[in-house]
Amino acid sequence: LPRYRLTLAYDGAGFAGWQSQAPGQRTVQGTLEEALARLGGGEPVGVFGAGRTDTGVHALGQVASFDLPRAMGGPELQRALNGMLPADVRVLAAAVAPDGFHARKSARSKLYRYVLDTGPVRLPQRRASAGHVAWRLDEEAVSAAAALYVGRHDFAALASTGSSVKTTVRTVTRSEARFADTEGLPGQRTLVFEVEADGFLRKMVRSMVGGLVACGRGAVGPDTLRQVLRAGDRSAWPAPAEGCGLTLVRVDYPPGETD
Amino acid sequence: LPRYRLTLAYDGAGFAGWQSQAPGQRTVQGTLEEALARLGGGEPVGVFGAGRTDTGVHALGQVASFDLPRAMGGPELQRALNGMLPADVRVLAAAVAPDGFHARKSARSKLYRYVLDTGPVRLPQRRASAGHVAWRLDEEAVSAAAALYVGRHDFAALASTGSSVKTTVRTVTRSEARFADTEGLPGQRTLVFEVEADGFLRKMVRSMVGGLVACGRGAVGPDTLRQVLRAGDRSAWPAPAEGCGLTLVRVDYPPGETD
Repeated sequence: LPRYRLTLAYDGAGFAGWQSQAPGQRTVQGTLEEALARLGGGEPVGVFGAGRTDTGVHALGQVASFDLPRAMGGPELQRALNGMLPADVRVLAAAVAPDGFHARKSARSKLYRYVLDTGPVRLPQRRASAGHVAWRLDEEAVSAAAALYVGRHDFAALASTGSSVKTTVRTVTRSEARFADTEGLPGQRTLVFEVEADGFLRKMVRSMVGGLVACGRGAVGPDTLRQVLRAGDRSAWPAPAEGCGLTLVRVDYPPGETD
Repeated sequence: LPRYRLTLAYDGAGFAGWQSQAPGQRTVQGTLEEALARLGGGEPVGVFGAGRTDTGVHALGQVASFDLPRAMGGPELQRALNGMLPADVRVLAAAVAPDGFHARKSARSKLYRYVLDTGPVRLPQRRASAGHVAWRLDEEAVSAAAALYVGRHDFAALASTGSSVKTTVRTVTRSEARFADTEGLPGQRTLVFEVEADGFLRKMVRSMVGGLVACGRGAVGPDTLRQVLRAGDRSAWPAPAEGCGLTLVRVDYPPGETD
């Protein structure tokens, strides 16, 4: 069977995440598998996603891989899927992938972005696409906290409880916090946090943002946050930020795996 | 009774516009009047909006005026309303207004913005906040068309049929089309059209965008469009763009009317 690779964008607001945690929920994976089964003549098609995004989390460049019981060209597959999929998920690119390509296992790095509006008013237009806290944040403290994440660390303090992964060590190659005025809201500021790593634990980016917010509002200092990170103390780590501010922007693969 | 002025932001996706065209529809005006009636102890409060935005049209800086059967400070009024209003409409500012202030009649100019994604794929994240056409547009032709609107003209060709206004002459002080790459969609472009005038006819901005699109895809040349505009020929004007790409950004008042 030919193996395919898709690049996907979706609006996470209407999905219970990429992958179902409970039966009967609408998921991106399930929606895609349904369309692929129809395309493949009724046979079930199992789809792997590069990042298992949570409820409400968006994607601009999610990558999925699967075997289809039918040979099609990439552009033909893209058109056929976009003709069947609902408007809140779109195929941006489709191509035949090399044998052995696996959207998650072959991935070399992922880039996530978190958008957080800060200040008293939550802009209606962004209530499903940006997180929100009512405080103004100390921007230097937020940047100092973002810098703590860079490098190879054990991120056990940021791992969701109950997840079973072999290792909680990840290498973060980029962790940047930028602030700008919030359009339409004089005096309010928007934080854009971008983080790139070789992999992420469940709720890891949202927990990172929780750390930034805790530092930015003065609930904890960057030095204390560093100690909690180094100690792997999950119970002392600030609560994760809400899902709707998060977007999986891009997944990168080693050159040989991309075509 | 004290007169008040509000600045409002709303996500138009869940509203049948500012003002109801048919009974039983959810409107921004109706939602606001309901909250104000509760605040005013049950007495009905009539609200005037600066721009009567259509179904799906958004606002970052709509202005509303009304008399309230109760004296309150601006910040207190803002907090009280935001505590009662649904999340898709927010009060950004509230203040006591001078006697005789009327959100629509006192307005000197309004700024609207239209965001239009162009190209084969419609980004899920923006399907309720940007218009979309599948074509790539000729950017020079679009800019040439935008320039036609500047100045004092009879915009009868762009007026919605069945509207009864005293005059269809308006003065456009700014009409600018900018293009940028669409984030997440390689090869696609996003048009941002901003237009400022002393007033707008119903569906006028969306008809302006219809004209830009017709020129940009080569269906009509800028010279022909100019002739149709000058002739006031409503039947020859291109169809208006969809509402969801439009935002009322700002309303300006003469200095004496602002506080």
